[in-house]
Amino acid sequence: MNLDEMTMEEIVEEISKLYGEKKYLQIKEIFMELNPADVAAVFEEMPDERQVLLFRLLPKEEAAETFVELDGDTQEAIIRAFSDNELREVIDELYLDDTVDIIEEMPATIVKRILKNTDAQTRASINALLKYPEDSAGSIMTPEFVDLKKDNTVEDAFKRIRRTGVDKETIYTCYVTDESRHLIGVTTVKELLLHDTDDLIEEFMETNTIYVYTHDDREIAARLFDKYNFLALPVVDMEGRLVGIITVDDAIDVIQEETTEDIHKMNAIVPTVEKPYLKVSVFDTWRARIPWLMLLMVSATFTGMIITKFEDKLNALIVLTSFIPMLMDTGGNSGGQASVTIIRALSLNEIDLKDIFKVIWKEVRVGLLCGVSLSVINFAKIWVVDRMLLGNNEITLYVNLVISLTLVVEIVFAKIIGCTLPIIAKKMKFDPAVMSSPFITTIVDAISLLVYFTFATAILHI
Amino acid sequence: MNLDEMTMEEIVEEISKLYGEKKYLQIKEIFMELNPADVAAVFEEMPDERQVLLFRLLPKEEAAETFVELDGDTQEAIIRAFSDNELREVIDELYLDDTVDIIEEMPATIVKRILKNTDAQTRASINALLKYPEDSAGSIMTPEFVDLKKDNTVEDAFKRIRRTGVDKETIYTCYVTDESRHLIGVTTVKELLLHDTDDLIEEFMETNTIYVYTHDDREIAARLFDKYNFLALPVVDMEGRLVGIITVDDAIDVIQEETTEDIHKMNAIVPTVEKPYLKVSVFDTWRARIPWLMLLMVSATFTGMIITKFEDKLNALIVLTSFIPMLMDTGGNSGGQASVTIIRALSLNEIDLKDIFKVIWKEVRVGLLCGVSLSVINFAKIWVVDRMLLGNNEITLYVNLVISLTLVVEIVFAKIIGCTLPIIAKKMKFDPAVMSSPFITTIVDAISLLVYFTFATAILHI
Repeated sequence: MNLDEMTMEEIVEEISKLYGEKKYLQIKEIFMELNPADVAAVFEEMPDERQVLLFRLLPKEEAAETFVELDGDTQEAIIRAFSDNELREVIDELYLDDTVDIIEEMPATIVKRILKNTDAQTRASINALLKYPEDSAGSIMTPEFVDLKKDNTVEDAFKRIRRTGVDKETIYTCYVTDESRHLIGVTTVKELLLHDTDDLIEEFMETNTIYVYTHDDREIAARLFDKYNFLALPVVDMEGRLVGIITVDDAIDVIQEETTEDIHKMNAIVPTVEKPYLKVSVFDTWRARIPWLMLLMVSATFTGMIITKFEDKLNALIVLTSFIPMLMDTGGNSGGQASVTIIRALSLNEIDLKDIFKVIWKEVRVGLLCGVSLSVINFAKIWVVDRMLLGNNEITLYVNLVISLTLVVEIVFAKIIGCTLPIIAKKMKFDPAVMSSPFITTIVDAISLLVYFTFATAILHI
Repeated sequence: MNLDEMTMEEIVEEISKLYGEKKYLQIKEIFMELNPADVAAVFEEMPDERQVLLFRLLPKEEAAETFVELDGDTQEAIIRAFSDNELREVIDELYLDDTVDIIEEMPATIVKRILKNTDAQTRASINALLKYPEDSAGSIMTPEFVDLKKDNTVEDAFKRIRRTGVDKETIYTCYVTDESRHLIGVTTVKELLLHDTDDLIEEFMETNTIYVYTHDDREIAARLFDKYNFLALPVVDMEGRLVGIITVDDAIDVIQEETTEDIHKMNAIVPTVEKPYLKVSVFDTWRARIPWLMLLMVSATFTGMIITKFEDKLNALIVLTSFIPMLMDTGGNSGGQASVTIIRALSLNEIDLKDIFKVIWKEVRVGLLCGVSLSVINFAKIWVVDRMLLGNNEITLYVNLVISLTLVVEIVFAKIIGCTLPIIAKKMKFDPAVMSSPFITTIVDAISLLVYFTFATAILHI
């Protein structure tokens, strides 16, 4: 059997078959061949009652690595079925930051059992980590790292890594601290390998270390990985003492989660607990979506009021109504394009608050180009399709002119509003992602209608 | 002077001052303290004519690391000012994948100069890398990696790493190949450090290696980093021979670029060259935004036709018109919420094609909850605000009922369409991100109007 050539579904099927035939040794062999993330994926396809038995097939280290990859519900079910002894064995193998992540998701009774089954020192570290606010750098760091002293030789360093490294999440970046645990430098295993065994660490360590504070936003920490290509980033407390490190795999997770949050916010969804789509309950999904829907629905009252105010003009020339959806959608789309481009550029630090006038100037020109080109196409389309083909005689040259002029003006407005609001939001310390297409659309709708009726009044004399 | 406490702007100012005073040695000292990514940021704030002189202040290795971080225009200006000798020195220090990235962005004359100034072997590797299609795993890999043989001892391995490692982008993951360069296993420096010096690699190497093919999509490769927490991923050719590796920093870049592409597509922008916002010309921005705007504008013809068809009903009761914007926006927002949630979940592999019915069933229930709650609020709001406060007597209980019923039905429709289209797009091998809010909005608009007029006809007998 060649696992490489089997899809995940075929593997799950094979394991189900072997399970039915009680061929546990063969299942174990398959598990040993798979990466822990894949073993976890297999688990989640299995019925609950099989999971615990299957989990017991895994050797200690692989068991811990698989456990971390499971979703919260499965973790909980397995812990409930564990003896204290089994629980202790798994927890012992976990990295501390992973243990903390698990604890944060579990109900109180299980947390109690986990803490009861860890030694005093680990328990103290866990409690310390639990104290960092959610979304802080402290909350995603691990206190397990390789620390060296500046008067260590390369040989000392390798001895220390060999002795303590097995339990560290990463050994490749080593941190140099003084007696009071202040971070004074950093070096890498690559540097160590390329130096002579009796060279002193202080002779070649990097002293301008980039670090974050425990209370810094975890997103700031993650962006540093993107910028500087780090494998790990040191985290210090207010006194500059090294208390932990963030590893690149956790930074990637943060980048992904923060991006999902941004994408949701940009589309009028309140970001909620970070769970995969199918795991979020219908009620929680509703709670995440209803606030903005409601706010935007009520704001649309203004567009309604504008239409009511110009009711007599629409009554006089009802054909004007039929272009309202097109004008609203085009304005909304144009503004949305500008706002998401700016929101993403802000989040990638491509633009800054001070760039606001450069941005507006650019969007005005893009808006004019888009407005004029759409307007020309639309003018032709209305004339050929709506008037000549569909024979709508209410559409005069002047009506067409009103629509075309509205397009140009509303698109320029939409671009300006779309690019300005996210930057202003950032300036006011709000999340720019909230100033996104649905919000922009609501504002642009009102402006578009006002522009439309103004041109209609002026040109058509109604 | 403590650089740690200075902002980037202050550093730029300080360097400009020192430059004016011709204190180049002090500038060099500041550069030595900064991370290459920060030196590059300083460069981009400097006037062009200063960049070359400043660049010459950097020692060879730092010069190369800084060069990689510069934007294309600055790189080009510096290369133009370089002597062949200087060019050769910088290229020698670059990792091959970075050289290829630079070559891909430069005009032909500069590419020729770069290739002229590299040795035959490097030139052959560059040409090989240039052949991989854009967006393929091959195009982001580097052919520089540590390769070992299975009968090497740990001591052999360390000797090899010490001898060849200085030029490798990463040494921490080592690949084991057979005589014909087939990938047969993988190990890490951590494993090597934890084993005895005379242990054989084959005794402890991992043999179930996860790899990608050179022609695989680079996004697939990047997602594997997210899933398995790799530091590097091997890339093999069709015959399974190891030809390169992808490192985690490049994977993060790919994740960010692909996400930006997705966000742009979700908002009706055609993804273009990966350049920071302010570097893209007005014309290119227009080209990226106009196709979807035009398509969506023309599609809105249908909503216009629906309104024209029901013109007489609107004429009979013009108040119905004033609720069209609210109904359209709410439908569009509801559908947009569903579609972006699904698009993001698909891209993170949280859901699969086979989940389509689970997804629809969930969205129907969320849609009902959202629809009913919005409908109730809206009913009350219309009655209290529009009728009682604003005194609009055209709004009868029946009119209000038509609007409220339309809300519930259109939201359920919007959710179903919003969640289904991205999955169908994926099934048909299109990018799901294209089935995003603006597109959904256009479809939902038409459906909402049809539902609205149907209820109006049935309930109000107009």
